[in-house]
Amino acid sequence: MRFNSETSSDGVSEQLFTLDDVPGVLWTPEGATGTRPLILMGHGGGQHKKAPGVLVRARRFVAECGFAVVAVDAPGHGDRPKDEEYNRIATENQARVEAGEELAPLIAHFQALVARQTVPEWQAVLDAVQRHVGEGPVGYWGVSLGCGLGVPFVAAEPRVRAAVLGLGGALASAEAAARITIPVEFLVQWDDERVPRAQSLALFDALASTEKTLHANPGKHGEIPRFELDSTLHFFSRHLT
Amino acid sequence: MRFNSETSSDGVSEQLFTLDDVPGVLWTPEGATGTRPLILMGHGGGQHKKAPGVLVRARRFVAECGFAVVAVDAPGHGDRPKDEEYNRIATENQARVEAGEELAPLIAHFQALVARQTVPEWQAVLDAVQRHVGEGPVGYWGVSLGCGLGVPFVAAEPRVRAAVLGLGGALASAEAAARITIPVEFLVQWDDERVPRAQSLALFDALASTEKTLHANPGKHGEIPRFELDSTLHFFSRHLT
Repeated sequence: MRFNSETSSDGVSEQLFTLDDVPGVLWTPEGATGTRPLILMGHGGGQHKKAPGVLVRARRFVAECGFAVVAVDAPGHGDRPKDEEYNRIATENQARVEAGEELAPLIAHFQALVARQTVPEWQAVLDAVQRHVGEGPVGYWGVSLGCGLGVPFVAAEPRVRAAVLGLGGALASAEAAARITIPVEFLVQWDDERVPRAQSLALFDALASTEKTLHANPGKHGEIPRFELDSTLHFFSRHLT
Repeated sequence: MRFNSETSSDGVSEQLFTLDDVPGVLWTPEGATGTRPLILMGHGGGQHKKAPGVLVRARRFVAECGFAVVAVDAPGHGDRPKDEEYNRIATENQARVEAGEELAPLIAHFQALVARQTVPEWQAVLDAVQRHVGEGPVGYWGVSLGCGLGVPFVAAEPRVRAAVLGLGGALASAEAAARITIPVEFLVQWDDERVPRAQSLALFDALASTEKTLHANPGKHGEIPRFELDSTLHFFSRHLT
């Protein structure tokens, strides 16, 4: 793990790093020492490790809860090179949708494929980051692509104790969801134009967690209301501290 | 409005009253003066104005938010005399369910009938209580019977600015729900044995509110998890203060 830069503002320190070929960013309370909870955040499709939605959440997790937060670019996203195979599939999918095929199963299949690469990558990120912030409880936050990649990750990774997931459907990951038993807060956009409502509810249904809570709000895929972030802060505080 | 007794504990004052023939209870911060938000709470079927679930919520609204809270016995409940017509219908419904009829439509029809009486009763309660706690913003909290009676009440009463509803279905009150435009937090129990899931989701759907948020949790009708009360406190604080 190689740290490339460190900046700081409003009490939040931000360190860019690379781990093998994966570029990432670690946020911590400025001057923090000692073990603390760590949130791994997965960004959405077409976004990157410092996308505005990731950044605003990460800074609040650090500033208000004292957590460490890490995010890395998904394959083919942010500062990573384009991936030829993923690109080819994305182009094919685009053509299939234009020819009238349903979008959701194509997204689901694609996310399941990428997850085979990202689950071990993210586990390596946890290993490396925990050497810096200590082996405290770990949370996961990810919606949309971050849910498609997050469900298999959370299912595979026993260090994760609580997860916020959502904007994803059962097609991608119902099987992995059935292996998740930790508390989950699950976000659904009631008028999601990308994930059919029934598939979102089916993914929530598939989670084996005793404590799982579904929050559904009106609006499209990208329109999660601002007050859900307050709820997420309470959720992680309840389970990680 | 006649006050019958006043007691106080842990900073919360509790005053029993009757308004015409309706017995009620008003909770306020001990020694409070000045206008404050007021929550009207509707209890569940077979319960009463001081049922444990009402009491624990009322005390937190007062102690943590500084609100006033009022609850009254529904017709045929608590300290009110049995109502012959309602009793007859309840006995008939019991027999119809034993004969194999579906429970949900019977409950829905019954609640719609009772609401014709409780909407004006509760409006009179608001009038009377506001003369004591001032004309601040009003919230409504009610699930199950408290939702069946609450939806028509909230639809009819412009003083209500935010409502927590749930454990109720569209059969009872979809038409009234379509006239509700204030923020609503709507609670669904995912394994509700009394209200079919599809009917709960349909009632949420029917609300005309721009801001409405559905919280669904595993468990049966009576098993709303404890953390939802924290969420309700945040919800009312956000909208009433």
